[in-house]
Amino acid sequence: MTRVLYDLCGIDEGLRFSPFCWRVRYALAHKGLEVQTRPWRFNDTEALAFADHDKVPVLVDGEEVITDSYEILRYLDRAYPEAPLLGEGLAEARGRFFKHYAERVIAPAMLRTIIMDLLNAIHPDDRAYFRETREKRFGRTLEEFHSPAKGLAQLDAALEPLRAQLADSDFLDGDAPAGADYLVFGNFMWARCVSSADLVSNADPVHGWLERMLDQHDGLGRRALRVTDIEGAYR
Amino acid sequence: MTRVLYDLCGIDEGLRFSPFCWRVRYALAHKGLEVQTRPWRFNDTEALAFADHDKVPVLVDGEEVITDSYEILRYLDRAYPEAPLLGEGLAEARGRFFKHYAERVIAPAMLRTIIMDLLNAIHPDDRAYFRETREKRFGRTLEEFHSPAKGLAQLDAALEPLRAQLADSDFLDGDAPAGADYLVFGNFMWARCVSSADLVSNADPVHGWLERMLDQHDGLGRRALRVTDIEGAYR
Repeated sequence: MTRVLYDLCGIDEGLRFSPFCWRVRYALAHKGLEVQTRPWRFNDTEALAFADHDKVPVLVDGEEVITDSYEILRYLDRAYPEAPLLGEGLAEARGRFFKHYAERVIAPAMLRTIIMDLLNAIHPDDRAYFRETREKRFGRTLEEFHSPAKGLAQLDAALEPLRAQLADSDFLDGDAPAGADYLVFGNFMWARCVSSADLVSNADPVHGWLERMLDQHDGLGRRALRVTDIEGAYR
Repeated sequence: MTRVLYDLCGIDEGLRFSPFCWRVRYALAHKGLEVQTRPWRFNDTEALAFADHDKVPVLVDGEEVITDSYEILRYLDRAYPEAPLLGEGLAEARGRFFKHYAERVIAPAMLRTIIMDLLNAIHPDDRAYFRETREKRFGRTLEEFHSPAKGLAQLDAALEPLRAQLADSDFLDGDAPAGADYLVFGNFMWARCVSSADLVSNADPVHGWLERMLDQHDGLGRRALRVTDIEGAYR
């Protein structure tokens, strides 16, 4: 059986930056499951028609086709119960909060800082689509939305509860990382792959956590191709 | 055996507004445990000497003396394992995040809106202590810190992940409230008891959650004395 993950790529097929796909890459590694990733671009709608879906991640696991990063984590817990990612009951309900915290608080703050880097990292054929959909969502141009000073201040405030959590334990989920860590860390991989912006100071407890997360699963995150690794690609 | 909770009071002995004490009141009710509350004021340091502590809540449960609201919730789970508040493992680690989120994100946003109401609700003999400690913490006068417009905007942004969570389920912890709900709701009881400020619009999913929380445990929160109930006390 080949397990396949459709994974967003940018100007280079090896440049993978979707925060949602990174959640799933870490979740699969957490379960010790091999996966073949298949590069996908925003405009490859035909390639996902089989899943009746238009976004990645899409995971094909034998006969199963699962879409949406959070649903994929839930699926993995059902299909491979060892080493829970989200767990059940109170653990699962609270795990879900990290998804919302990552998407509604962390991501918007980061995006104001990295949006022009992100545009640059996207494949040229996908940029018009990206610009159009995001400008509609923000109600202004990407250039108007772009504001690193505001974004970094917003991120600094948004990280307060993470800092407090990391004063108690090495990972959000305790002594070892699990679903909550992956849900939030996906956003940091997104920023790392497309930008060289320093989002967090070296003295911040969040910095130590990021370093530990990059080392997890044989350096899965640290080994990832960044736009800064591609000659002439980082402007 | 009498179970006793030392509980902060204000201008009236019946006015109980500490967010940390409210967490514990709800936690005890969640476990179905009776408690006698004992009114305590900021300057009653002698009264807590037996606990080697200078703040409430302090819970005396038979031979046990437990300080700090989060530690009291953990203690209750150990001593009375039925109906977990925080739970264990991933559930507990994630529960802790709600404490930090409540204290580092929700509370500061609320405080900018209600601080002058809060000062007014505190016993006159405690106001100098309150003003001095808080002005030192904020680095400015209470009057300078007071900014309802900023506070409400900050709160509105801070509630984003709560709103998303409450689109999925009636309570933060799922179909019924538990530790995560109480950790955050304590702050809303704090504001409710000292102020008539509308912190959340009626159309906000958070509003519906607040109404449900007020109804829990035979209307424990809804029955609480508010400063607006005390003639001449609300300015």
